[in-house]
Amino acid sequence: MSNVKDLIRAGDNPDITAERRKATFPIGKMSAFIHGGEEKLQRRHEILEFVESVPEFQDPIPVEFMSREERCDNNARKAVAMTDRTDAIDGSDFFGEGMFYQSLIMGRDLHAMSLHYVMFVPTLQGQTDDEQLDHWLTLAIGRGILGTYAQTELGHGTNLSKLETTATYDPKTEEFVLNSPTVTAAKWWPGSLGKSSNYAVVVAQLWTKGVCHGPHPFIVQLRDEETHMPLKGIRLGDIGPKFGINGGDNGYLLFDKLRIPRRNMLMRYSKVLENGDYVAPQHSKLGYGTMVFVRSVMIRDQSMQLAAAATIAIRYSAIRRQGELKPDNGEVQILDYQTQQFRLLPQLAKALVFLFAASEVRDLYMQVTEQLSTGNTELLAELHALSSGLKSVVSWEVAQGIEQCRMSCGGHGYSHASGLPEAYGYAVGGCTYEGENIVMLLQVARFLMKVAESVKRQDSKLSDIAAYIGLKGAKNSKFTSVDKTPVDELVRDFEHIARQQVFVACNILSENQKRMAPELAWNATSVELCKASRLHVKANLMKSYLRRVSQCQDSQIRPVLVDIGRLFALDALTHHASSLTMGGYLSDAQLLAMKQGIYTLLARLRPNAVALVDSLDFSDRELHSVLGRRDGNVYQALLEWAQQSQLNKTDVLPTFEKYLGPMMKDARSKL
Amino acid sequence: MSNVKDLIRAGDNPDITAERRKATFPIGKMSAFIHGGEEKLQRRHEILEFVESVPEFQDPIPVEFMSREERCDNNARKAVAMTDRTDAIDGSDFFGEGMFYQSLIMGRDLHAMSLHYVMFVPTLQGQTDDEQLDHWLTLAIGRGILGTYAQTELGHGTNLSKLETTATYDPKTEEFVLNSPTVTAAKWWPGSLGKSSNYAVVVAQLWTKGVCHGPHPFIVQLRDEETHMPLKGIRLGDIGPKFGINGGDNGYLLFDKLRIPRRNMLMRYSKVLENGDYVAPQHSKLGYGTMVFVRSVMIRDQSMQLAAAATIAIRYSAIRRQGELKPDNGEVQILDYQTQQFRLLPQLAKALVFLFAASEVRDLYMQVTEQLSTGNTELLAELHALSSGLKSVVSWEVAQGIEQCRMSCGGHGYSHASGLPEAYGYAVGGCTYEGENIVMLLQVARFLMKVAESVKRQDSKLSDIAAYIGLKGAKNSKFTSVDKTPVDELVRDFEHIARQQVFVACNILSENQKRMAPELAWNATSVELCKASRLHVKANLMKSYLRRVSQCQDSQIRPVLVDIGRLFALDALTHHASSLTMGGYLSDAQLLAMKQGIYTLLARLRPNAVALVDSLDFSDRELHSVLGRRDGNVYQALLEWAQQSQLNKTDVLPTFEKYLGPMMKDARSKL
Repeated sequence: MSNVKDLIRAGDNPDITAERRKATFPIGKMSAFIHGGEEKLQRRHEILEFVESVPEFQDPIPVEFMSREERCDNNARKAVAMTDRTDAIDGSDFFGEGMFYQSLIMGRDLHAMSLHYVMFVPTLQGQTDDEQLDHWLTLAIGRGILGTYAQTELGHGTNLSKLETTATYDPKTEEFVLNSPTVTAAKWWPGSLGKSSNYAVVVAQLWTKGVCHGPHPFIVQLRDEETHMPLKGIRLGDIGPKFGINGGDNGYLLFDKLRIPRRNMLMRYSKVLENGDYVAPQHSKLGYGTMVFVRSVMIRDQSMQLAAAATIAIRYSAIRRQGELKPDNGEVQILDYQTQQFRLLPQLAKALVFLFAASEVRDLYMQVTEQLSTGNTELLAELHALSSGLKSVVSWEVAQGIEQCRMSCGGHGYSHASGLPEAYGYAVGGCTYEGENIVMLLQVARFLMKVAESVKRQDSKLSDIAAYIGLKGAKNSKFTSVDKTPVDELVRDFEHIARQQVFVACNILSENQKRMAPELAWNATSVELCKASRLHVKANLMKSYLRRVSQCQDSQIRPVLVDIGRLFALDALTHHASSLTMGGYLSDAQLLAMKQGIYTLLARLRPNAVALVDSLDFSDRELHSVLGRRDGNVYQALLEWAQQSQLNKTDVLPTFEKYLGPMMKDARSKL
Repeated sequence: MSNVKDLIRAGDNPDITAERRKATFPIGKMSAFIHGGEEKLQRRHEILEFVESVPEFQDPIPVEFMSREERCDNNARKAVAMTDRTDAIDGSDFFGEGMFYQSLIMGRDLHAMSLHYVMFVPTLQGQTDDEQLDHWLTLAIGRGILGTYAQTELGHGTNLSKLETTATYDPKTEEFVLNSPTVTAAKWWPGSLGKSSNYAVVVAQLWTKGVCHGPHPFIVQLRDEETHMPLKGIRLGDIGPKFGINGGDNGYLLFDKLRIPRRNMLMRYSKVLENGDYVAPQHSKLGYGTMVFVRSVMIRDQSMQLAAAATIAIRYSAIRRQGELKPDNGEVQILDYQTQQFRLLPQLAKALVFLFAASEVRDLYMQVTEQLSTGNTELLAELHALSSGLKSVVSWEVAQGIEQCRMSCGGHGYSHASGLPEAYGYAVGGCTYEGENIVMLLQVARFLMKVAESVKRQDSKLSDIAAYIGLKGAKNSKFTSVDKTPVDELVRDFEHIARQQVFVACNILSENQKRMAPELAWNATSVELCKASRLHVKANLMKSYLRRVSQCQDSQIRPVLVDIGRLFALDALTHHASSLTMGGYLSDAQLLAMKQGIYTLLARLRPNAVALVDSLDFSDRELHSVLGRRDGNVYQALLEWAQQSQLNKTDVLPTFEKYLGPMMKDARSKL
């Protein structure tokens, strides 16, 4: 897809063809750089071709026209077909081939086996002892059972210590008794828990010999393997429709004194012996692995959603003509409006910055996994802080960005034909699941406040990621204009405002601590603390982007990537303008110059906009959007899409015979 | 509902009862002030009681569990029942009783007759001559026909002059020939066009004697009155599912040389005579009436959506306990977290500010309608500018605010049980329909640039709404702290940044005009122009709020309302902090004091938060949210709600027999 000759075809909308012809760089090269090399790009195309070739992977009608029941059915069907054929991809490359393969088949949906692969199997891998591993992992990986991960409860999310489900050891029968003492103890939310899974890892408060040892994981059979009926002592079901991701079930689960064998406790780190003695774990942090894995995957997944939304909206803006700039010159492409560029091009920039950051997180995750296998936990804390902060900032910015893309398509963006409502509903969930964003930011802030204290005391070496907080920094920004200011200076500006906010928050915290208990002081500072975390993460995003761009030597590609980085920087910095102007670090004139810089960059990037989104290498299948089609022939396709509406199955709906017809007839007869 | 004794009942969640008991003001009084007096409030309760009493108004199951077909059917049924019983309300009070009655019955949905009442009937009232009025209005108001308003086309929205549908006069038969020359000429979007309506007002390019006179309205029969089959020469249908508002059909419509009588042109202002002579209208602006009406209605409707979302999220945050502030003190209400207050209380403040502004717009609309009936168009332009600007700012802030409310409810906000995804999908459409927001802001900017020129030339009196732009204003903000600064000074701060931005934009525009054609200069300034419009609207919102509060003399209510106004102001002002600090108008210390002011207000409003949302007087029926229930008994209700999920009709889904069961059995047999 990423060669101009593949992108431009006979019969395409001439406006989009003209855009592709005026690109200042070779799209294929840009695409290879973004996706990590020619070879990776080639694999994308092979996998796409494979997926297109398998009849079982196709939807009988577009999923947006299906009822929830039909959609879940279709997804379960495709999920089995997908996992039947995993030989087609390199399973060890989950971040790359695995995610891509799945997204091509499943679209913006989870399915009956999502949690099995993302949570159940990794938890078994991480938390079982060797004997348990042999038994359960073999079953799970072989698809002999389907599992999920049940932790969150109806009344309890973030604060795991208050989970209510209990697992009480009975030494007489050598069993645990699982119980849900209240309605708020119901397990709530896990994907596939309600209908599809027959097993789950359940997190419950472990009681033995009258003592509670806190939450621990247990493997629990939920349904009969042959009949799939829920087992006695178990009440479960689906929890109903959601904002997005409605192609699978989510579940609730209540236990009525269900007994499970002692060895169903996952015993890699903690154990309960036959006699009920509790053996505590040696490393308390090792359980983080799965969580960090999921967040790392999320960052890439979210970035791709924004990239897709930007592709859809930019392509559509190139073929949509509306309004005139010069009289009698015909209607213009809406991408020519500055306001439209201002809405869209920063989203494209963010998508690229986030994607490159996702690669770094993936690399760090791989490194940590290797270290952990030798018992080394050195980098785990850093990965945890980095992934929490990035997850929070990226998911928020992605959701906001998708909505900007959607609204910039006007009315057509509101239709499911655009794919954008679905993309938003899917992505915005990421602000909440796997650690609510504000909670995540406050975790990062804990780390930053330690750094600030450490800097004040000058007593220890700072980790790489926080080293800038210990530096003095310049008194004034060096920014003059977008072209005269080296892009590295923009990093200094980010660092300045992040550092400044870390100490602003730290000082407010100290002041508050003089007047109230430490926990209340923390709470009274929390808005400022979140801001410090956000700025810290953004500074890191900018740095990680430039590290990646520095690997690019191509003279046609590099300048465009640098401009993208500048746009990201100026857009983010001007959003925090009052932090920049505080203390005179940035003057009013410099701030105006930054804004002017944005307008300059918008105008300069405009001619390459379509080529840039083409470089993201999305196929029509992956975009799943009538507006984002490669060929730009949107209107005819919209009309064809609409024909499939559920309401168009008959010319006259039953509502006419039942309600509207009699009403009108009666009224006319009286006139 | 609005007396404490009605609000507090046995069996309620004790946390929410405790909140109600600690209110510093009488909820009933606050409620009466918000809703315009005791009598209006009383009517709300009577209408609610009536609606609850009519069996035909009830949903057999909650609408979120229905398929689109079922939902449209249910809505058509309720719409007929609703319009059968309009005697129960004062039909002349559409902004009050009419909207309330409809929202109680239809929820966050449109229905088969929405456009009939909001667009079709008002257009007939405004655009027909007397003879036409007699015929068509009688039929329409009597419900003998069902109409809609078809203007937007697949390829054309904002720029009406480029609509492609033609109405060509044929003097031989004294008919117009309606035609859709291309696929982009398809009428697209009108509510009820695809399935429910049998008539429409169609806007088409009027051609007669070889000359095009631009877009004009025609009344067109779409379907046979008896059979409801589409007429020959007409192709129409539904356009498919959308982000929200899926309880009715939207339509497309294509004409194949359809002939309609000459007198089907709406001839109040323009005419075509039998011989084909065109008679031009005398007042070109009179057609604005319906548009301004719809925008005025929208502002109230949108404000109520945010008010509802704030009610849901604040009540839920009072009963949700999570995390600990002081160790061993138990989990705290999440409303006690500063970050939660920071997310929610400004939304409540906005809702009230917007609601009060909506009342002013309604009053102005009433005044303009009266003037127009005597041919006086003096205030129409002002109403148009005001309603466009408010529509744009309010719909954006409401959508953002609902999402903040939704996310602040954590996972449960993502479920349709919360009502919040539905509220968002419904409200965010308002950013796009009835004038895309950016387009609206640029219209306001045209007005502001005229004002700026006028101020520079000192040549004319400014309208009331823009008078502040001509004033000099203070050099420095008087802000010291939230309590020492009179609230009127915050108005001065708003005016300062709005005025400043008007001239910043004006100057950039002048500079750009030196280098390029006027239209290109306008485009190159448009981001700055939009900002000027937003600040202008926000300044007006603050002023209109304080005008309303100044009518309140009650010593218990007034201080709370003033604090709400302060919170709105400081929240909005700190979002534009760099505009305030520009040129040294606000110092760094003052800016920090503003932020501290927000934290002070959050803490001060916290104890009244539940009482304030109670004062909005929403019934559980209107909120339609498991999380927002008056009684606070959320968890049991969530469990009950979930039982109704489409997927819970059977214990075992067909997916098990079809896909998952065989897969697992096969795998187990091989292990």
